[in-house]
Amino acid sequence: MEISVIKIGGNVIDHPEKSTRFLKLFAKFPGTKILVHGGGVLASRIGTSLGITPNMHHGRRITDKETLDVVTMVYAGLINKNLVASLQAFGQNAIGLTGADGNAIKSIKRPAGEVDYGFVGDVESVNTGLLETLLKQNIAPVFCAITHDRKGQLLNTNADTIASEIATALAKKHQVKLYFCFDKTGVLMDAENEASLIPLINEDIYKELIKDKIIHSGMIPKLENAFNAINKGVNHVWMGLPENLLLASRGKNAGTIIESLKYDLY
Amino acid sequence: MEISVIKIGGNVIDHPEKSTRFLKLFAKFPGTKILVHGGGVLASRIGTSLGITPNMHHGRRITDKETLDVVTMVYAGLINKNLVASLQAFGQNAIGLTGADGNAIKSIKRPAGEVDYGFVGDVESVNTGLLETLLKQNIAPVFCAITHDRKGQLLNTNADTIASEIATALAKKHQVKLYFCFDKTGVLMDAENEASLIPLINEDIYKELIKDKIIHSGMIPKLENAFNAINKGVNHVWMGLPENLLLASRGKNAGTIIESLKYDLY
Repeated sequence: MEISVIKIGGNVIDHPEKSTRFLKLFAKFPGTKILVHGGGVLASRIGTSLGITPNMHHGRRITDKETLDVVTMVYAGLINKNLVASLQAFGQNAIGLTGADGNAIKSIKRPAGEVDYGFVGDVESVNTGLLETLLKQNIAPVFCAITHDRKGQLLNTNADTIASEIATALAKKHQVKLYFCFDKTGVLMDAENEASLIPLINEDIYKELIKDKIIHSGMIPKLENAFNAINKGVNHVWMGLPENLLLASRGKNAGTIIESLKYDLY
Repeated sequence: MEISVIKIGGNVIDHPEKSTRFLKLFAKFPGTKILVHGGGVLASRIGTSLGITPNMHHGRRITDKETLDVVTMVYAGLINKNLVASLQAFGQNAIGLTGADGNAIKSIKRPAGEVDYGFVGDVESVNTGLLETLLKQNIAPVFCAITHDRKGQLLNTNADTIASEIATALAKKHQVKLYFCFDKTGVLMDAENEASLIPLINEDIYKELIKDKIIHSGMIPKLENAFNAINKGVNHVWMGLPENLLLASRGKNAGTIIESLKYDLY
């Protein structure tokens, strides 16, 4: 099977117009596809209304019991189900999932180190059989960033990581393309200048860019997830604006392509 | 296929110990099964924390846009996903669904009459194909009381009605038993006296009980859903305590059995 895994973040979720435009595009996107979504901004807003102040550490959410309840409500309920209902309206059959549903993604609670992230899970395994069953019936799985430990505990998990792990697991048997949509044209030399796009990154370039502090903070885990995927057999990894997805899928230059270092050895 | 549809309400959901006991029982319950759950009390509590006061009319929730967001968060997110994670821990593969997921249940927004219930949906159709696919793989569908209109709108729908409509739709091709769990031993002659159980009700008895005001308020729509199911081909309809489910499934007298009037004609 040829499968596209597409990840969208808060910049799409939080804007009704952008969200509608993206979902129409996703519904028309050729081939079998999986959507993975974030939603941290809305979770922070609703949490704050409930008197639960967001507690972030290096851009990652510290997830105590109350915060876990909030992200479960917002990601798996409010956002996920509205995305699914919209996709149905646009003619794309879809099913909203957490990692607990059909045991789709099992994770392990991150041990407390220097920082105790609380109810945060690192992915252990992806149930590709369930995904294949759905994809064969042209039902697009729509994943929010909640997983479980198979012992009854839900766990908050980074959405980029979920996208990367799903793509990697499926790549063992299928041709998989992974698209990370975010609020930039791609990886930029200068974050303030959209014209400074870097069209292709491999690990050599990546290391240089980190050394030169061109890539920093939130872009580092995002690129780590991208390299994880390309190094573990995902056929194509792309980062860019959601509105450039179709161009990117047609091989046009409209974002940053992540290449395995191995590729350079040939 | 022999399918059991089991509905649980807030009296189970709201008590961690009762909930755990029930979910262990559900995991062991013989045969293929579907769970339908409510959760209105928790939705009211979280809505109130968010400054959204519950607005009820004859025991039914008036669902404005903000209330719809709350019930979507609480039913489809918080409650549904925790139930699914617990079932996974108890060895029962399960998948949490709204009517939007896989287009499982399509409903139509109730037209404003004397009362405008807002974003409330009356069930139009159930996608039995999706349910059969899941049940054949021993995945128990777990439904919350949210449906969609297939035009992108989520709709709040009575959980008893969802259970009844799922059972009715599946009964066209399968042997279906429908179990309504609630906080009484069954239908009672005297609501304050658990010993006054009515072990069997048909429509003749039902009309008498309404006339005598023994059945009133919330029990009326519940029994209407029960009769709807039994009159449309569901093989067995039962009402009682969740802890009596196993007894009931073995044909023991432990609750109220609903019989079709038609049955009496033979």
